[in-house]
Amino acid sequence: MTVGTADAVGDDAVLGALVAVEIALTRAWAVVGDAPAELAERVSTQLGWSGPGLLALGHGIDLAELATAAVDGGNPVIPLVGRLRSRVPESDRAWVHRGATSQDVLDSAVMLLARGVGHTIVQHLGEVDASLVALAVRHRDEVAVARTLGQHAVPTTVGLRAATWLVGVRRARRRLEHALAHLPAQLGGAAGTLSAFVEHARVAHGAEAEQVVERLVAAFANELDLAVPEHPWHTVRWPVTELGDALVQTIDSLGVIAGDVATLARTEIGELVESAPGGSSAMPHKRNPAASVLIRSAALRAPQLGATLHLAAALAVDERPDGAWHAEWPTVRELLRLALGAAGTASRLTAGLAVDLAAVARNLDQSAGLLVTERLAIVLGPIIGIDRARSIVAAATSVDDLERVLHAEPGLAGHDIAALLDPAAYLGLAGTLVDRATTLGEGS
Amino acid sequence: MTVGTADAVGDDAVLGALVAVEIALTRAWAVVGDAPAELAERVSTQLGWSGPGLLALGHGIDLAELATAAVDGGNPVIPLVGRLRSRVPESDRAWVHRGATSQDVLDSAVMLLARGVGHTIVQHLGEVDASLVALAVRHRDEVAVARTLGQHAVPTTVGLRAATWLVGVRRARRRLEHALAHLPAQLGGAAGTLSAFVEHARVAHGAEAEQVVERLVAAFANELDLAVPEHPWHTVRWPVTELGDALVQTIDSLGVIAGDVATLARTEIGELVESAPGGSSAMPHKRNPAASVLIRSAALRAPQLGATLHLAAALAVDERPDGAWHAEWPTVRELLRLALGAAGTASRLTAGLAVDLAAVARNLDQSAGLLVTERLAIVLGPIIGIDRARSIVAAATSVDDLERVLHAEPGLAGHDIAALLDPAAYLGLAGTLVDRATTLGEGS
Amino acid sequence: MTVGTADAVGDDAVLGALVAVEIALTRAWAVVGDAPAELAERVSTQLGWSGPGLLALGHGIDLAELATAAVDGGNPVIPLVGRLRSRVPESDRAWVHRGATSQDVLDSAVMLLARGVGHTIVQHLGEVDASLVALAVRHRDEVAVARTLGQHAVPTTVGLRAATWLVGVRRARRRLEHALAHLPAQLGGAAGTLSAFVEHARVAHGAEAEQVVERLVAAFANELDLAVPEHPWHTVRWPVTELGDALVQTIDSLGVIAGDVATLARTEIGELVESAPGGSSAMPHKRNPAASVLIRSAALRAPQLGATLHLAAALAVDERPDGAWHAEWPTVRELLRLALGAAGTASRLTAGLAVDLAAVARNLDQSAGLLVTERLAIVLGPIIGIDRARSIVAAATSVDDLERVLHAEPGLAGHDIAALLDPAAYLGLAGTLVDRATTLGEGS
Amino acid sequence: MTVGTADAVGDDAVLGALVAVEIALTRAWAVVGDAPAELAERVSTQLGWSGPGLLALGHGIDLAELATAAVDGGNPVIPLVGRLRSRVPESDRAWVHRGATSQDVLDSAVMLLARGVGHTIVQHLGEVDASLVALAVRHRDEVAVARTLGQHAVPTTVGLRAATWLVGVRRARRRLEHALAHLPAQLGGAAGTLSAFVEHARVAHGAEAEQVVERLVAAFANELDLAVPEHPWHTVRWPVTELGDALVQTIDSLGVIAGDVATLARTEIGELVESAPGGSSAMPHKRNPAASVLIRSAALRAPQLGATLHLAAALAVDERPDGAWHAEWPTVRELLRLALGAAGTASRLTAGLAVDLAAVARNLDQSAGLLVTERLAIVLGPIIGIDRARSIVAAATSVDDLERVLHAEPGLAGHDIAALLDPAAYLGLAGTLVDRATTLGEGS
Repeated sequence: MTVGTADAVGDDAVLGALVAVEIALTRAWAVVGDAPAELAERVSTQLGWSGPGLLALGHGIDLAELATAAVDGGNPVIPLVGRLRSRVPESDRAWVHRGATSQDVLDSAVMLLARGVGHTIVQHLGEVDASLVALAVRHRDEVAVARTLGQHAVPTTVGLRAATWLVGVRRARRRLEHALAHLPAQLGGAAGTLSAFVEHARVAHGAEAEQVVERLVAAFANELDLAVPEHPWHTVRWPVTELGDALVQTIDSLGVIAGDVATLARTEIGELVESAPGGSSAMPHKRNPAASVLIRSAALRAPQLGATLHLAAALAVDERPDGAWHAEWPTVRELLRLALGAAGTASRLTAGLAVDLAAVARNLDQSAGLLVTERLAIVLGPIIGIDRARSIVAAATSVDDLERVLHAEPGLAGHDIAALLDPAAYLGLAGTLVDRATTLGEGS
Repeated sequence: MTVGTADAVGDDAVLGALVAVEIALTRAWAVVGDAPAELAERVSTQLGWSGPGLLALGHGIDLAELATAAVDGGNPVIPLVGRLRSRVPESDRAWVHRGATSQDVLDSAVMLLARGVGHTIVQHLGEVDASLVALAVRHRDEVAVARTLGQHAVPTTVGLRAATWLVGVRRARRRLEHALAHLPAQLGGAAGTLSAFVEHARVAHGAEAEQVVERLVAAFANELDLAVPEHPWHTVRWPVTELGDALVQTIDSLGVIAGDVATLARTEIGELVESAPGGSSAMPHKRNPAASVLIRSAALRAPQLGATLHLAAALAVDERPDGAWHAEWPTVRELLRLALGAAGTASRLTAGLAVDLAAVARNLDQSAGLLVTERLAIVLGPIIGIDRARSIVAAATSVDDLERVLHAEPGLAGHDIAALLDPAAYLGLAGTLVDRATTLGEGS
Repeated sequence: MTVGTADAVGDDAVLGALVAVEIALTRAWAVVGDAPAELAERVSTQLGWSGPGLLALGHGIDLAELATAAVDGGNPVIPLVGRLRSRVPESDRAWVHRGATSQDVLDSAVMLLARGVGHTIVQHLGEVDASLVALAVRHRDEVAVARTLGQHAVPTTVGLRAATWLVGVRRARRRLEHALAHLPAQLGGAAGTLSAFVEHARVAHGAEAEQVVERLVAAFANELDLAVPEHPWHTVRWPVTELGDALVQTIDSLGVIAGDVATLARTEIGELVESAPGGSSAMPHKRNPAASVLIRSAALRAPQLGATLHLAAALAVDERPDGAWHAEWPTVRELLRLALGAAGTASRLTAGLAVDLAAVARNLDQSAGLLVTERLAIVLGPIIGIDRARSIVAAATSVDDLERVLHAEPGLAGHDIAALLDPAAYLGLAGTLVDRATTLGEGS
Repeated sequence: MTVGTADAVGDDAVLGALVAVEIALTRAWAVVGDAPAELAERVSTQLGWSGPGLLALGHGIDLAELATAAVDGGNPVIPLVGRLRSRVPESDRAWVHRGATSQDVLDSAVMLLARGVGHTIVQHLGEVDASLVALAVRHRDEVAVARTLGQHAVPTTVGLRAATWLVGVRRARRRLEHALAHLPAQLGGAAGTLSAFVEHARVAHGAEAEQVVERLVAAFANELDLAVPEHPWHTVRWPVTELGDALVQTIDSLGVIAGDVATLARTEIGELVESAPGGSSAMPHKRNPAASVLIRSAALRAPQLGATLHLAAALAVDERPDGAWHAEWPTVRELLRLALGAAGTASRLTAGLAVDLAAVARNLDQSAGLLVTERLAIVLGPIIGIDRARSIVAAATSVDDLERVLHAEPGLAGHDIAALLDPAAYLGLAGTLVDRATTLGEGS
């Protein structure tokens, strides 16, 4: 069943967003001087206005009843408008939904919803960021095994691993923040010409009507704390796909952390432990990486949802599309839900992630000198000749074996074999990379 | 079979990119003062260096033979390095691939390839832009039917349709340009610590080795005309997914044009004709929208390829991933191929797109006054009462019928019914939107 | 907001399935003679057993409270078992969830849910089938324009179009029925060895325990009216992907109908009208193909959901997967929801679909003789020579033009030009194909 | 670059399939008695006929030149027909491509190609099957740790793991074989009515023409060794999606093996080793699971390719689709390529897969008694009370700890603690499941 964070993108939230959008439109008509200011305030109060960028609350619309009424038309705006109008004085009704089309309301509502949920996601990413910085700094010089294709390869550090996660999370956050800052309101009317708005405005403004409507669009966006659209986007769907791409990228970056944690928490590896691992009553020894599992499941689903948004964008034909648009709503909502869930879970996961330094050391020891065979080829070449160096390295099948052979090698007499084989001496730029990643500052 | 634009991302191009990357690394070692300058020049000449940002040509590596050798290892870099080394003097060989890992070379090569192909795509988008501006300006005030859910809705203009396409294409181009400008070179060594580079640099530079390697990375990127990576991105795959997202968005924006053209070119609609429609020997009357069909087929494939890149990004575990990375190469290449093909085709399509104004007018006439029933409800309300106005509008089943009823309506005596029903008088902001979209300038 | 058919796969339904599965397990322990029969009946009554293949009702578990408790563990089974046990006498509690693992319960519940929803879908497909048969038979010989790449091509019949839809729907239904008939129960225990079941059975049966557990698995499946699993499928996910593939294929086949209806209902084409087209208060002339739009939106989403199921299947590692499994539940549910909605909508759509024969004829007339140019090349070749025939056909730019040229052609004097150009005389196997498709019988 | 198995679905193969289809059509005209038998033989010889179900060879068509000519039309059939006709005597030319449309030829060619490649895939799956049976039988009773969510859970056997892989592979193979056996030829003519075929047949057969064409379709399919289509499938795309689904399911089943091998080959786990692990010259200790990596990369790509096929199927509008069809060819080919590569690689992987029994035992020892805590709760309940049993189990944090506590428990004096804790005594139906899976026989 639907577990957890559903509320922020649940049907209640969508309804609150739809109502907020309708109120914002009435308020915008007041801003441009057409509707009386007190009418806009009355409608705002009556329908539960909570302020710019916020969902309407206390509007009193019955969600279940509305959903039933919405089945036939295929979208909930038409029955909603009727119900909203019936909640305001008769004289105010003409100012509700004035000039708008259903898609204006739904698109703006999705953006409003995304904006709110998106900011919570960004906040969680900030928490993840802080935890990863702490982790990277604390373990900056803790030598660990680096693995490629699942195999022990060369040394790295626990800190660099955290710093690398951080780089991905920050990039995703920047992109998400950028997308959120550009989410536009939608106001195009029946077919993107805003003709009904202009016609309404002409009553009071005559030839000035066009300019008034341009101000109306800006006022509408302002009331919702959304960006002013440069053009109606009924069939130009970048606001949806750029949001979607940023959400998927966010989940990707958290998925990498989750994948690494799930791997490094394996019983045989044991380098990491989630702070609150999922238990099993029958198998109390199990320390399930429950948070990682949840994030990973989101990471496997998100890319295909993002693909659906792109398909819908590519198939947005005519002046308003015949099916592609309808495929977007549930998909955006599910992506928001997944990103919110993944980010919240990642915040808890990274905050409580424990490093088992003994396990780190044990795994390092397992391969020890073998981890620096790459180094040996570089260092020994000039001393004993590259062919001999390569031959020693190629023949090494175990740590002990390698040490023994090096000690026995005539040309290396007097060299500090232990230092040569020390993983801690073969870390390259690991420390530098940690420093750079962790000191760029939150805002970068 | 593979038709057309395959060359720019074909195996030959990939090989040219791989070789260029290997040469760039040798050159970078010279830039930082480790390799002799003349050695770098010799290697450049020998292996076909063509300059920063360009593929190597005339390297003489046999593609088919290399592909065969690459089967076992799963990637072509290992056998390639051997072949490259054998083409330079023995003394120069140690400077080829010095310190690098296969992924460094392949990732950098994919970025180099993407950069070149991407710039061609951007150029095609510029051509599309120019054609759409011309189309929008020329037909700024040409009234046409707007369609929603496939049905005649309200009036719009031919120019606004083109301007709306333009808005989508420009947004995509901006995003693609941004992605191309940030494509980073890759240099991380076996596991992202750059340890082999540092070890090599230590020979000549001792304690300065780390700074030298930081300069090496920058020099390497410069030689390739790619961005300097802030961090190795072996498992931080935003360079790939942000490129992929931008390519998919590009194809989305062209897909919308193609969808509209295919629809409006339907025999019964006939408002648009491709300049060089595909023929049929047996059915010479057919004017197949062949360019649109090709673009649409790309638009149906691209989103899922983009999804694969995100999946690969999310599953990039350990210090280098165990399968996810291998899923990227063919997918990025196919996306580049699709975007290049779609952009080139769209350039030709939009350059030659013909508007059949007679058909535009005929379709408009079919619905005529019915297209402004929305307007009637607004305008007539104050005159004959909103209930009567709505009732007239709701009862209208045909253009003639509507005109007759309006003429017969007592309250409207003396009103200019023809003007009221004129679609050209109900265009809202159409002209303004065209002007804004077409005068923002190419660079915006 | 979530509109319409959510109930059948809503949280309530999932809970009813989970409870039914737990009851079925207790009942199975009674069937094999371990639990007392009266205990199984008591538990059945207490927890709302409704019979084999049915969801449990009246179990009294609070959905919202359970969902909250389920957040931490990541799946709802653990808290559910506690709540179920607390609702039966203490002495019965050990027989609830005896030997099972969470995945056994969830997998079986998803199958149970799918079975019920799937049968409703199949029923709707049967209704679609009947409507299409009627449509195809009624319009078997009604000549219409066939379109390829959106262009008029050659003649076909209204009936053949319906028969072709029918062929796709029947194939999908057969595949779905096949998948539903093979949905297995899941019973593997903690890691697919069924060891806890065997251990429990050993108390009463000693060395016979293994055989008893094999009977237990069969009894469990029988109680749920699901197929007996040949092997635990914790990581062998064909039951999920084959179901998913069949659901996607179902939606594909309905998507084709919806696409054709949306196209043929376009204002300029007008050959088809949905019986209850969606209206627009402001634009009463619009006859929105609302059902087609809903089905198309499902068709754009379903394939990517199917892909997620395959990914989850491919990544099902270890003895139970670390994230892939969790990605399945919401995805299967959404696919079931889409298929159910699409099938129900398609049933209404096809039942009420109206053919506007005047529009069919008008469109046919538009191209008339041009539709048989392919025929002319075949027929005229032997009479006036193939080169001359081709030249006439190639030069024809309009219907009138073609007729005039043919009448003027000396070699055709005395030939019945009108008959030659009659689209009705160039229908190939259309009638035969309709007969074959419509008489194969429902069951085929 | 494209590595390995490209040939079987390369451009050469596609061309061979296209030519074979054209020849088969000419031969079919001879089978029904219209074309002279010697003409069909002459065309066959001239164009490289190799027999039913086989690609044409030695046809002498220049691939590169044809590809260039195909750019404009968007498909290669039109230029191909011209080239084929020019290679046969003038009198035979009318019998080449007689009555067919491009889609007939391309669809049939894709099916022919899929049939051949598919049979090779099935053969590889048979090899995988044999290897897995051997592995499962050999290690039927080898106790190993079962892992869930990456954590040690309960005991299983090495054999059961192989048997579980086997169950998935067999299911996929059965489905693929079923799909291959039903791949139909395509013959519909310009718009699915077969009217040109009937018109041609009418010359010789008059009123019998329809029956002749029905025999023609059957003869055509027979010549290609494909199934006789029950209905033209220009817009009924199950032949493509059912093939696609089966290929994806095949790759899924191999992906599971690859995922498990990559995991179990990790340095710390080490239970499995690929026979020919990929090496690294610089890091000779690495035993990269190179085959697993390749298979996994296919498994991450295939599901999205399958989704594209479903989308194309759902969007197949009109009598032939405007873009959706064009999206299929490259996608089917890439899926065939992936499945062929994955199956061949899996054949080698499973044939050479080595089990390191020492590592299996070492990992088992690491958790030893903890693996049977589930059992303890069952067995000890009746002896020392369920609460006490649970409390002991819940407190156990290490193997040693658990043993000590049990030995000290007064109520357990005299019980064989070692036997109780023996993982080998808690294997449930593992052996039975292996026997069942491995003795069902290849053909099941």
